[in-house]
Amino acid sequence: MTSSPSVYPKVVISGTGLWTPPHVVTNEELVTAYNSWANRYNTIHAKAISAGEMTAKPEGSAAFIEKAAGIKQRYVYAKEGLLDIDRMRPILSERPESALSDQAEVGADAGRKAMEAAGKTADDIDAVIVSCSYTQRAYPAIAIEVQDALGIQNGFAFDMLVGCSAGTFALHRAYEMVRSGTARTVLVVNPEMISPQANYCDRDSHFIFGDAATALVVEREETFTSAHGFEILSAHAQTRFSSNVRSNFGYFSRITDADPFSATNLFHQNGRRVFKEVCPMAIQHLSAHIGQYGLAASDIRRWWLHQANSHMNEMICTKLLGHPASFDEAPIILDQYANTASAGSLIVFHLYHDDLQSGDHGVICSFGAGYSIGSLILKKR
Amino acid sequence: MTSSPSVYPKVVISGTGLWTPPHVVTNEELVTAYNSWANRYNTIHAKAISAGEMTAKPEGSAAFIEKAAGIKQRYVYAKEGLLDIDRMRPILSERPESALSDQAEVGADAGRKAMEAAGKTADDIDAVIVSCSYTQRAYPAIAIEVQDALGIQNGFAFDMLVGCSAGTFALHRAYEMVRSGTARTVLVVNPEMISPQANYCDRDSHFIFGDAATALVVEREETFTSAHGFEILSAHAQTRFSSNVRSNFGYFSRITDADPFSATNLFHQNGRRVFKEVCPMAIQHLSAHIGQYGLAASDIRRWWLHQANSHMNEMICTKLLGHPASFDEAPIILDQYANTASAGSLIVFHLYHDDLQSGDHGVICSFGAGYSIGSLILKKR
Repeated sequence: MTSSPSVYPKVVISGTGLWTPPHVVTNEELVTAYNSWANRYNTIHAKAISAGEMTAKPEGSAAFIEKAAGIKQRYVYAKEGLLDIDRMRPILSERPESALSDQAEVGADAGRKAMEAAGKTADDIDAVIVSCSYTQRAYPAIAIEVQDALGIQNGFAFDMLVGCSAGTFALHRAYEMVRSGTARTVLVVNPEMISPQANYCDRDSHFIFGDAATALVVEREETFTSAHGFEILSAHAQTRFSSNVRSNFGYFSRITDADPFSATNLFHQNGRRVFKEVCPMAIQHLSAHIGQYGLAASDIRRWWLHQANSHMNEMICTKLLGHPASFDEAPIILDQYANTASAGSLIVFHLYHDDLQSGDHGVICSFGAGYSIGSLILKKR
Repeated sequence: MTSSPSVYPKVVISGTGLWTPPHVVTNEELVTAYNSWANRYNTIHAKAISAGEMTAKPEGSAAFIEKAAGIKQRYVYAKEGLLDIDRMRPILSERPESALSDQAEVGADAGRKAMEAAGKTADDIDAVIVSCSYTQRAYPAIAIEVQDALGIQNGFAFDMLVGCSAGTFALHRAYEMVRSGTARTVLVVNPEMISPQANYCDRDSHFIFGDAATALVVEREETFTSAHGFEILSAHAQTRFSSNVRSNFGYFSRITDADPFSATNLFHQNGRRVFKEVCPMAIQHLSAHIGQYGLAASDIRRWWLHQANSHMNEMICTKLLGHPASFDEAPIILDQYANTASAGSLIVFHLYHDDLQSGDHGVICSFGAGYSIGSLILKKR
C-alpha cells in the first residue's frame, strides 16, 4: 500500500483501448452444442452409466447460466469448430513464425487505441507490458512483438502472468516504473485469449469465458494531455495460494507424457469455494485499501470490479456500500463479455469512465485465480 | 536509464541463493546418445537419404561443443530417459495438484538460501517475483506457490516471462518496487527448468541448456544488514523483436491441432545471426549505460555477464575493456552449468561477489532471446 509524497512524480492513466473479438457465441448456441454432445455421450455409454461405472453428463441450460453467473453471451477469437459436437473446441490455422502472432495482433490493436486515446505516438512509449492469463508462447515475449508491431523503437517490453489479476498487477508495475523513474510512459496490454483453454465438454465451466484485449497508457502527470485522465493515488495487492482455480497446461507434459489438454490440464475450478473464499478477501482488501487512504466507500464514485460472476460483485458491493450497487456505481459487462479474466475490470473502466467529474474517486479491483487481489485508487483529473 | 536522486530510497541486493540440480550430463554422454540415435535414424532412412528425399543427421562431437560454446557439462532436473535413444527426452512423474510443483520447489529452495544470506525471515518479504523462460503452468502463478512454500504471509507475488533477460528484468521490477515504495523487501526467483524444452535430436542445440534456479533479495538500504550488499545504482533495459531465438510451445496448439512438441515448437535458434546481432547490441548497451552513469569500463571491477556462449562474452569484453577479460574480471560458468537462460548472469553473481571491496563497481547484464538486454550497475557496500 502506498501513498504519494510530493517527491515522487504523479502518475496518470491517460488512455484506454479495447479489442473485442469478431464472433459472438450465445448461451443458447453453447448449450445446444453441449447438450447434443452430452446426450450422444450418454447414449454411447448408456450401459456403463446404468451399471454405475461411468457418470452421465448432466444437461445444461441457457437460463441457468444467466441466473448463475449473469452471462448471456461471450465474444470469441475463433468460433469455427466450437459448436461442432465432433470437435468441441475452436479450430484455427497456425501462423508461420514470419507472421504477427494472434495474441500480439489483438494486443497491438488494443494498444494502438489506447495510445490514440492518450494522444501518444510510438516515440512517446518507453515500456510495454503484456500481462494476461496465458501467453501464446514462451519467447520471444509477446510484449516485444507488440512493441515492434506498434513501431515503438525505444525502451523495453516483457510479459507477466498472474491469472485474473494480470491486468491490475501490470498497472501496478507501470505505476512503479513511472513513479521510480525507469520509464516515463508505459503501455499496459492485456490480451486475454482464454477460449482455447476452456473445456467445452464441462457443463460447469464451458460457459464462463470470453476473449478480449484491453490496453492502458500510464504516464507522468506532467506529460498528460488527454481529455480523460485518472491519477493513480495508490496501488495495493495481495496474493494467497489456492488451487481452487487452476490451469495446469504446460511444457512439463513433454517429459511426464501427460495429455497436455486433459480435463485437469485445462481450466477447472471449485467454484463454490472460490466464491466463499474470495468474496471476503476482496471485501477486506478494498475496505482496508480505501480506509488507509482515508476514504469511505461512499466517497468512491465508481467501482470498476473484476467480472467473473455477477453475484460475487453483488455481494462485495452490498457489503462495502451497505446497499446493492446500481449499474452506475459498479457497472457489469458479464452479460455481453462473460468472464474475460484480467481484462474484465479494465473493459468496465474503458467503457465507463468518461462521465466522471474532476475530483471524483474510483477504484479498479481484480480478484480471482492465485488467489490474487489487485486494486488501484484513482482520482479523475 | 535512471540515476538516483536523494529523494528515493536507496536499493540494495542483500542476499543470493542458488539451486543446482542433482544430475550432471557430460558432453560425452550427450553426444554418445545423440550419435547412436542419429546413426540409427540414418540407417533406417538410408534409401531416402541416398535418394536425396531426406537429410542425414550429422554426427556430433563433445570436443566441438566445448570449442564452439565453452560447455563441458550441464546440470539437469531429470536425467532418466534423456540418454535413452528410444526416448531422447527426460521422463518424470507428474505431481498431483495437492503437491508442491517441481518449479515452485526448486524456486523455493533458491529463495530460502537467498533469504538466509540476506538475514531475512518470511515476515520481512512483501513481494515475490518468479521470472524465467518457462512457467510450469499458467495459473495460479508459480510465484504465489513459492510465496506460500516459504511461509510468506503478506504481500503479493506474480510471474514474469522474458526469456534470457527474465532475471535482470525481474531485478529491475524489484528495484522499482522498493524505490517507489510499493514494497520494502522483494524476493526475486528465477527457476530455469529448460531441459524439458530442449530438442535432444538436434545436433546444433541439444547441448546448449542446463537447469538451475537463482534467487536474490532486494531491499531498502535502511533495513539491509547482511555481510555482502550491493547498491543498485542504475537499471537499464532494451528490447528489439527478433525470431532468431524462439520457443513456440503454447496452448494455441489445442485449436491449431499442431503437435505441441514439434521441432519448431521446441527451442530453436539461428545461432550465427544471434551472435552477429546481439553482441553489438550488448556492447553498445553496456557502453552507453556505464557512460551515462559517468563510469568507464576500467572502473568496473567485475562483469557478471549472461552465460550463453563463451565466445560472445569474449567478444563483448574485449570490445569494452580493450583486452580479453580475465576470469576475475568476467567469470564464466558455462563449462559447468551450460546455458541456464536468465539464471546465467545471476549464478555468476552468486558465486563471485564476496571478494569485492566496499566501493567497487560491478555490472550484471543479460542478453538474448527477444532480443532483450537488461543491465544493473552495482556498488559494493
